Amino acid sequence: MSTAPVIPAPAPSPSLVTSASKAKATPAVFMEFVATRDELLAELSAAQGIVSTKTTIPILSHLLIEANDGSVSVSATNLDQALRTKFNAIVKKPGIATVSARKLYDYIRLLPAGDVSIKLLDNSWLQIRAGRSTTKMVGMPRDSYPQMQSPAANLKPVSLSVQLLRSLIGRTVIAVSTEESRYTLNGALLILEANKVAMCATDGHRLAIAAKDEEVPGVETARKLLIPSKALHDLNSLLGSTNEDTVQVFEDETSMYFRMGSRDYSTRKMSGQFPNYAAVIPTNNKNTVIVPTADFERSLRRVSQFADEKSNGIKLNLGANSLKINSSSTEAGESEDTVDAPYAAGPITIKVNSSYVLDFCKVVGAGEIKMSFKDGQSAARFEPEVANSEFTSFIYIVMPMR
Amino acid sequence: MSTAPVIPAPAPSPSLVTSASKAKATPAVFMEFVATRDELLAELSAAQGIVSTKTTIPILSHLLIEANDGSVSVSATNLDQALRTKFNAIVKKPGIATVSARKLYDYIRLLPAGDVSIKLLDNSWLQIRAGRSTTKMVGMPRDSYPQMQSPAANLKPVSLSVQLLRSLIGRTVIAVSTEESRYTLNGALLILEANKVAMCATDGHRLAIAAKDEEVPGVETARKLLIPSKALHDLNSLLGSTNEDTVQVFEDETSMYFRMGSRDYSTRKMSGQFPNYAAVIPTNNKNTVIVPTADFERSLRRVSQFADEKSNGIKLNLGANSLKINSSSTEAGESEDTVDAPYAAGPITIKVNSSYVLDFCKVVGAGEIKMSFKDGQSAARFEPEVANSEFTSFIYIVMPMR
Repeated sequence: MSTAPVIPAPAPSPSLVTSASKAKATPAVFMEFVATRDELLAELSAAQGIVSTKTTIPILSHLLIEANDGSVSVSATNLDQALRTKFNAIVKKPGIATVSARKLYDYIRLLPAGDVSIKLLDNSWLQIRAGRSTTKMVGMPRDSYPQMQSPAANLKPVSLSVQLLRSLIGRTVIAVSTEESRYTLNGALLILEANKVAMCATDGHRLAIAAKDEEVPGVETARKLLIPSKALHDLNSLLGSTNEDTVQVFEDETSMYFRMGSRDYSTRKMSGQFPNYAAVIPTNNKNTVIVPTADFERSLRRVSQFADEKSNGIKLNLGANSLKINSSSTEAGESEDTVDAPYAAGPITIKVNSSYVLDFCKVVGAGEIKMSFKDGQSAARFEPEVANSEFTSFIYIVMPMR
Repeated sequence: MSTAPVIPAPAPSPSLVTSASKAKATPAVFMEFVATRDELLAELSAAQGIVSTKTTIPILSHLLIEANDGSVSVSATNLDQALRTKFNAIVKKPGIATVSARKLYDYIRLLPAGDVSIKLLDNSWLQIRAGRSTTKMVGMPRDSYPQMQSPAANLKPVSLSVQLLRSLIGRTVIAVSTEESRYTLNGALLILEANKVAMCATDGHRLAIAAKDEEVPGVETARKLLIPSKALHDLNSLLGSTNEDTVQVFEDETSMYFRMGSRDYSTRKMSGQFPNYAAVIPTNNKNTVIVPTADFERSLRRVSQFADEKSNGIKLNLGANSLKINSSSTEAGESEDTVDAPYAAGPITIKVNSSYVLDFCKVVGAGEIKMSFKDGQSAARFEPEVANSEFTSFIYIVMPMR
């Protein structure tokens, strides 16, 4: 924040009223409304995650504030994703302003509960008054703010439970690739059928798929939407802070829209072919062992401290009624943990990335994990032992390491 | 952690027991003890802060573990500071080992409560067994571990209350300079008199001094100890985690020692002349205003968001029964807050670094702050309005900005 933003230098503005002579000049007002600090803060908070923080385009670090009759909307965008949210306000003068998302949020957050009066003055300055506090924030002209898209009126939405979509994202986002070069893997696939919702993600080394059998209002033909990684994180946060029960999903040629009450979130669609995930899921892994999640996770965390730091490779050794977890590295040493596990089939040793297995432990929740293997060279399958009521199935596949 | 530590490559060691033939070789044991995980963890945790993390000398990232009859000591040092701490253990074979402080702590932390058995094997490997977990950690030969100093037996200690010393550090450490070039200001002065303990720190722009009138056992002639910044932070943590009520302070030519029960902490003394702090404290600041700490702090935080980012300069404006706080910057805008404050003397405007004043608000606690000024060009004096029972006085001085 030490470099000056690339904005037109504002003309010298009057400083805060300190003498009677200065007080006489009444600045022109181009927008004015009064809202409660708490309502304003909730929407500013929702918008923070969408705003670009590392942008070279200064306007993208700003919010667009539009006051109309009886309500005010706040928009944020990073050009690929956007949010437009609305709250009630007493609008004294309709108008449009832009202001730094971070600075406005930080200031409103520190105000006490109560009414906040916001005015757009000359030179794009935004005046904020609350109690005995008065602030004028440097804004930018609204002309350069990107156009916000809304779903066309003729688009028909699919209705999903807010809680279900959030859970689907939470379970599968762990497997989304973070390698930018693997473009079509930088997202998760939302699978919509008339009687089923599922989400699948993979980074090529592991795959997560969660599904729920339930009627989905609005699905006429089965559809698949590839949601980018950034949008998954935005949605996780927005679905977590909304008071709505239902999210409406719209789709057009270029974008997806998620409507939660007065919040409209949109994201550019990803193009490209998502892998044939169904072919990856092993169905004949006959060697099965069931372990308590908490014990297994603690053992994994201990042992993985002594795994090779680059590969995170650990060995799972299935033997008579025991699962041994081993690691060894030249730098740190070697470690072994044993977990109680009824098992009567032949011994299997498989090397896997411990952080992949830990990711699964973190999201699967309390209870027991069922692991099934074909042999030491084939994909391992992990799932909760008792299907959680939230999902009809949740399957996690990890490829073995050499 | 991606580069290999500069240690002699260990000879290939046996991997964890996986076959009957390997299990037959019983490794030689050079040290062995059993301790409870909780006692071990408490001492390892205390030692973490002292260990060098950014050192080019690998042994300094290690702990020295010495098992003697009935107890085990753990030592950590960064060459300037050191800690030696002791806990009860069943010692089966006395001996000395060194092992990575971080790796041992991380591993023990993840073990469940219960007994932990630790053995030093060949090649400086440390074997750790607990429940169904077995680990061998790479260690280093003990020969290169620095010699630990203890206070000579003829040194007489000064006894201080653990709580008082911790509070003195907490109130004054905020004013310690972080500029390495200002060597004698990179610490705080502990002032010991027969009936008074005080601590003073300054970075040249502000000064904090807290004092308590009470008898100090062991002080024959008044003394001043300049404690380095790193030691202040170490002590703050050690004084916070000890169960003792009293800390014994020893001093010799080169070092200071702080004994808290079975923990001995030492630090190299700082040389050089600490400024004449008494001359800096204004005693004729006649213009006084009293404000509630919480209101004042919130106002400061709001207004300082619009201060110049480099200087953090804000203006305090005292007028008829009001304290106005102002800021302005070209990039962000300008802000003003008004705090209720009975005041009848002449108007004063003084520019100060807001982060200095906020630091004081954070440590002074609930209640009211008394600010007193001579004029806009002289040092401002801050103190709690009602002296807290912990201190006889706590004074904070802030120099004005141009």
